[in-house]
Amino acid sequence: MKNIAYYNGVFAPMEEMKIPMNDRAIYFGDGVYEAMYVRNGKPFAMHDHLLRLDNSLRMARIPRPMPPEKLEELIFLAVSRVDALEQILYMQISRGTYPRCHAFPPADIPPNLLLFTREGRLADTSSRVKLRTEPDCRWAHCNVKTISMMPNVLAAQRAREEGCAETVFVRDGYVTECSSSGIFIITDGALQTAPLSGEILPSVTREHLLALAKALGMPVREAHFTYDKMLLSDEVFICSTSQHGQAAATVDKIPVGGRAPEALGALQQAYKGFVENDVGKL
Amino acid sequence: MKNIAYYNGVFAPMEEMKIPMNDRAIYFGDGVYEAMYVRNGKPFAMHDHLLRLDNSLRMARIPRPMPPEKLEELIFLAVSRVDALEQILYMQISRGTYPRCHAFPPADIPPNLLLFTREGRLADTSSRVKLRTEPDCRWAHCNVKTISMMPNVLAAQRAREEGCAETVFVRDGYVTECSSSGIFIITDGALQTAPLSGEILPSVTREHLLALAKALGMPVREAHFTYDKMLLSDEVFICSTSQHGQAAATVDKIPVGGRAPEALGALQQAYKGFVENDVGKL
Repeated sequence: MKNIAYYNGVFAPMEEMKIPMNDRAIYFGDGVYEAMYVRNGKPFAMHDHLLRLDNSLRMARIPRPMPPEKLEELIFLAVSRVDALEQILYMQISRGTYPRCHAFPPADIPPNLLLFTREGRLADTSSRVKLRTEPDCRWAHCNVKTISMMPNVLAAQRAREEGCAETVFVRDGYVTECSSSGIFIITDGALQTAPLSGEILPSVTREHLLALAKALGMPVREAHFTYDKMLLSDEVFICSTSQHGQAAATVDKIPVGGRAPEALGALQQAYKGFVENDVGKL
Repeated sequence: MKNIAYYNGVFAPMEEMKIPMNDRAIYFGDGVYEAMYVRNGKPFAMHDHLLRLDNSLRMARIPRPMPPEKLEELIFLAVSRVDALEQILYMQISRGTYPRCHAFPPADIPPNLLLFTREGRLADTSSRVKLRTEPDCRWAHCNVKTISMMPNVLAAQRAREEGCAETVFVRDGYVTECSSSGIFIITDGALQTAPLSGEILPSVTREHLLALAKALGMPVREAHFTYDKMLLSDEVFICSTSQHGQAAATVDKIPVGGRAPEALGALQQAYKGFVENDVGKL
């Protein structure tokens, strides 16, 4: 099959799957999610993603839909049904199905598990992309991977309209992250990204990159950097589940980076090896 | 019928209605909504709500699902199918059905219109309620009536757990609004509420109340007030589509208000008359 969706025990093609109107995802964006890259039938960094999912569920006060080992079984089953060596698997858990009411439904209402997987590749990181910035207008708990994402949707659209790969959020003069990616700079051979807080998602790719940089002997700084520092840095790049180090050519049409291609390339190569070590080569 | 739902041309009971998984409400909370009080088959202040819906759609960059006169027809048709003199009608418009992608779907993908109505009454405003406060963690565009509402859901639940009717949001020391209501104070005979901005919803009930207060000869102030001023005011009350002036007995367990019951009662009575003038008596 080209794709497969799962919802509370039922499998169907994505285009045919239907959800009860009273699923709280629909009225309130009241759920959390994860996306994983899949290669050769294996989800890359699955346990890191499932750990983050557990953290999001805890912060959003949504119960687990099933034990972790059952969820893993389901993930492998879904992946096996799609005829593609590379897939992007998505799953979301909402706070159950119940007539619309802001506060939580009764405790005996189970959460809903939605999952789908379809063909999807990693971004080609050999070329450089354009970025744009705007004030970070999001809520104070961006560490919860919520599906309440209208701010991210609008920012992603503005990026596309300006021919950019991403919108970079700037809060009080310093850079936080992008609409669906993390952002890093390389300055004087050191890798820097914003510290973990409610202002950014605890990105799985971020953790990997920081560990790989340390293994390469690169100094690593988890500290805020300003918009101006970003413009003056040796390299600027973004990362996500499907983009393992996408360097920027411009930010707000101002040329940036390009002054540490070896360090950038070393990180990209290290990440490539890290992925191959977990889920094999293509 | 006890309730009726509508989705893109199809009517069904709320419990049976199903939505395609790829509706962007589900992945992104990517839609806007309105709720209206209905009495005697007539939606109260319908044009005010439809105007605000248009404003939310414009700010969220979602097209209208149908011309306003068709939407009005649909609202009346749905209301006529439910056997209840008092109803709460809900409608939401999402940015169409399309495989998950942060940026907007292609321009030829139409928005989705979901609507339901069910029996629902106005809150009894004769008793006083408890309120609690917490820091306003929401995004910077609360003037968009978005369905991306996880912050509101969590705040509403915390209110319920503390036996409170609402969570009052406080930003930088001043009061903005509640998780699903506006908030007002009466001090020295004057009515005060936060000014319109991205920090609050342009509440329909707020506009009515301000106009009614002026008609009663009450001074009206659209200006920020602090948490401390709220505690010391003569009355504190909340308002929404289903709560036309619900006075507080306590805020954060501290007794408040109760020192201007005549002014409060005059506003409640004026609102009652305003509703009756539009949609009749019960």
